[in-house]
Amino acid sequence: MVENSLSPKNFKHKYTITVRFHEVDMLGVCYNAVYINYFETARLEYAKAVGLIPPKGIFSDGKIFFIVRNEINYRGFAHHDDVLEVYSKISFIKNSSFGYDHLIVNQKSGNVIVDGKVVIVHVDLKTRKSRLLPEDFIQKVKNFEPSVKILRE
Amino acid sequence: MVENSLSPKNFKHKYTITVRFHEVDMLGVCYNAVYINYFETARLEYAKAVGLIPPKGIFSDGKIFFIVRNEINYRGFAHHDDVLEVYSKISFIKNSSFGYDHLIVNQKSGNVIVDGKVVIVHVDLKTRKSRLLPEDFIQKVKNFEPSVKILRE
Amino acid sequence: MVENSLSPKNFKHKYTITVRFHEVDMLGVCYNAVYINYFETARLEYAKAVGLIPPKGIFSDGKIFFIVRNEINYRGFAHHDDVLEVYSKISFIKNSSFGYDHLIVNQKSGNVIVDGKVVIVHVDLKTRKSRLLPEDFIQKVKNFEPSVKILRE
Amino acid sequence: MVENSLSPKNFKHKYTITVRFHEVDMLGVCYNAVYINYFETARLEYAKAVGLIPPKGIFSDGKIFFIVRNEINYRGFAHHDDVLEVYSKISFIKNSSFGYDHLIVNQKSGNVIVDGKVVIVHVDLKTRKSRLLPEDFIQKVKNFEPSVKILRE
Repeated sequence: MVENSLSPKNFKHKYTITVRFHEVDMLGVCYNAVYINYFETARLEYAKAVGLIPPKGIFSDGKIFFIVRNEINYRGFAHHDDVLEVYSKISFIKNSSFGYDHLIVNQKSGNVIVDGKVVIVHVDLKTRKSRLLPEDFIQKVKNFEPSVKILRE
Repeated sequence: MVENSLSPKNFKHKYTITVRFHEVDMLGVCYNAVYINYFETARLEYAKAVGLIPPKGIFSDGKIFFIVRNEINYRGFAHHDDVLEVYSKISFIKNSSFGYDHLIVNQKSGNVIVDGKVVIVHVDLKTRKSRLLPEDFIQKVKNFEPSVKILRE
Repeated sequence: MVENSLSPKNFKHKYTITVRFHEVDMLGVCYNAVYINYFETARLEYAKAVGLIPPKGIFSDGKIFFIVRNEINYRGFAHHDDVLEVYSKISFIKNSSFGYDHLIVNQKSGNVIVDGKVVIVHVDLKTRKSRLLPEDFIQKVKNFEPSVKILRE
Repeated sequence: MVENSLSPKNFKHKYTITVRFHEVDMLGVCYNAVYINYFETARLEYAKAVGLIPPKGIFSDGKIFFIVRNEINYRGFAHHDDVLEVYSKISFIKNSSFGYDHLIVNQKSGNVIVDGKVVIVHVDLKTRKSRLLPEDFIQKVKNFEPSVKILRE
């Protein structure tokens, strides 16, 4: 039985990506670090869908975000030209940081390839110190992802 | 006070790497997934030092290894041309898998940039199923890294 | 006035690609080597359209191809999330090698970003020596791209 | 007989680089676009040796350079962990642009792996238009590379 968190049913947002030739390693499978790129590309599409990306592009509003943690579990292999479904959701929001859950499934077979969690912090452009997430950020996420856990102190 | 695991003193093996231009992202810092490459490059040097790489190169002896988990915490920034010290050690060995601890420190400032843990599984070339780690693998690691935890069942 | 070869009108095959975050460098523009990846990804889609990719994926029929030359001219900048149209065509076929022309245009502005030429050689899997291109390869390309120049000796 | 330009004897500056695991493709050889990165990494070391990099790092003096052309010929293969010697020199200087020649040789075998030429333009940070190369740039290059051709109009 598949863990609950490893089912696409728990995700609303899907982004489809195809494994490119240069992303495959000498063992003939998608290289392990490439999934970090896939998570990120999907995450930025998610952020667009939620309304978090300003019209002139990321960072154009002076809001800077840095990744503070990446974790990823490899549960299967992907090969050149495989079509992958990358699922994303914001799972929690703290004072200045928030977390994403990701899941990647092979479109054809339905097999789980990887899953992961990413933690991101809102940072002040000048001081590079963490900064409170604004209220409208939380509202937008709540609207899109009602199950998000608000863990503010 | 720095966590014990975040001190270079806990590591015997060091590999020095310099941040390349194409590894820096649009925020001017080393891109988050690049550290996964650094861990890997350092790990293969570690494996050489331990005597785990066959003379004709990785996989030439039919022993295949896949990563099953990557985790990484970002604690600082690295910039173009920064010299980084990548510390590695095998921290535990199970039946068919084993784990690495990694730490990356800026050579000039001594600041911790990232730390991470990687779990790797020994896999049969044909079946792609996990496979018992051979006894000489364990001996070689013990010789090089006496503190390794043997967690065999 | 734009050079003839720099107009999308000279191309039949178009592949659309979006600039990803990790493909942007510290100057805020798509990194120069990334376009080589875009050419390649588009080229493999082109080869599919022409009928050159075997059903089980590239190389599964034992036909190996290596790049012998890449050239690329940078005529504009692309930024994160820009949608790019990558145009490709096989322009000539020699005994064992053939050439591609590529052009990349910003979808929104119509501006030419880069153009390039790639030469590829058909190689024997075992000897790694160049090998005559089979007749059906030439026929398939001629069918798809009637303007291709056949330069066989 | 090897072409004159394909001999390391024609180069004064050498930078040594080792092929990393993630730089190898599914054919088991160093991926074609990776050599563009190697050229660049070597070129920035060359620029340091010539005295062209400001003490606080590239671009810190407001001088921006963009690549306008890359060309590369593949003459051999490199594999994981191969040690490569990357040779670089500035071959010509025009009004606002200048050109590099590169050559990569396998350290062990002495075989030429790739050669290439890169053209770079000096650009104004604000207007992104080409800008005359300053006189001290030319002097520094001439001092380091007496054979450089000055092609100013």
